Amino acid sequence: MPKKVDHEARRREISQALWRIASTRGLEGASLRDVAAEAGISLGRLQHYFRTKDEMLVFALRHIESLAQERIRARIEALDGEPAPRDILRACLTGMLPLDEQSRIGFLVGVAHFHRALHDPSLRTDAREGIPRLRSFFADQLRLATERGEVRPGRDADDEAMVLISLVDGLSTYILLDVHTPEKAVQLLDMRLDQLFDGPAAD
Amino acid sequence: MPKKVDHEARRREISQALWRIASTRGLEGASLRDVAAEAGISLGRLQHYFRTKDEMLVFALRHIESLAQERIRARIEALDGEPAPRDILRACLTGMLPLDEQSRIGFLVGVAHFHRALHDPSLRTDAREGIPRLRSFFADQLRLATERGEVRPGRDADDEAMVLISLVDGLSTYILLDVHTPEKAVQLLDMRLDQLFDGPAAD
Repeated sequence: MPKKVDHEARRREISQALWRIASTRGLEGASLRDVAAEAGISLGRLQHYFRTKDEMLVFALRHIESLAQERIRARIEALDGEPAPRDILRACLTGMLPLDEQSRIGFLVGVAHFHRALHDPSLRTDAREGIPRLRSFFADQLRLATERGEVRPGRDADDEAMVLISLVDGLSTYILLDVHTPEKAVQLLDMRLDQLFDGPAAD
Repeated sequence: MPKKVDHEARRREISQALWRIASTRGLEGASLRDVAAEAGISLGRLQHYFRTKDEMLVFALRHIESLAQERIRARIEALDGEPAPRDILRACLTGMLPLDEQSRIGFLVGVAHFHRALHDPSLRTDAREGIPRLRSFFADQLRLATERGEVRPGRDADDEAMVLISLVDGLSTYILLDVHTPEKAVQLLDMRLDQLFDGPAAD
């Protein structure tokens, strides 16, 4: 048992070290040695968790994904009563935007991974699996909303879901580049949701 | 005069060297020395054009922007007669998507710059100036379309313009991650334009 506790504590320490590096100079330029130093452990010990820079990015990505899931789950649980499809979609989509320090750093880790995946097809597997799964989930919510009369029939749920995912990605980029504020990005997302939820039973 | 010709030829050689590096391993990991070697000139000579890595990225960005402008201008000029606002918007937006080798590499250069700008606020000036200018241009086209009855009144032209820019950014990301094909991204963009151009005089 103590061994397992140590292992979890070590993972947490390493995650936090990655987090601090991501938030300051970015993971892209960081070596395994830098991460070990930041976590206050030896390089050899660090390499029990990941042996290469690509494995490090995947480790960091898993960490931010689990934080994002917790954040989105908390937002959904905070909704009153039985949440409507629109509320669930909005909770997920705003949970994907870099609106606070945690989600901002999470997005930066995602960008570091994205950047590497551009030049290494094997790293694209995560995106190729994760995004279609997310699109499916969103499309199911949109189909449910159509059944409930909140979205007018005739819309392609999968295509609308992919437009929402792409839109949030672009809105996030322009938050990080200081083109617009987080508040403005949320407003643009809400405008899009208003247009999408145009059925007789909406609101 | 010959001096000027040399200077232009040199700029072109350096641009092409940057281009080749961006398309293979990416500019992010490339040093000025690497670029000089790729262009077949000395480091000292290269430094007449840019002295730091940040200046190199700005140089590369200017180059891809001028190529993108040419590409978009050619698309607009290829339109028959007096192009409608929707055709102009579509030409610009599809010109921003990584649909062929040139635009794909252009997008990669943009990503390398973006990545660096995330950790260096002074590099965000380009985005902070360029995107609002683009948004204004798109918004003007949308206002014109509203006057022509092609877009229903009541839409916020600036907000709709920013949604289009953000959408294209996200659609591009997912082309490069092999989440969807270039053709699919164009189809999603057209779906969005269909929804936007919903006035009585549309089509």
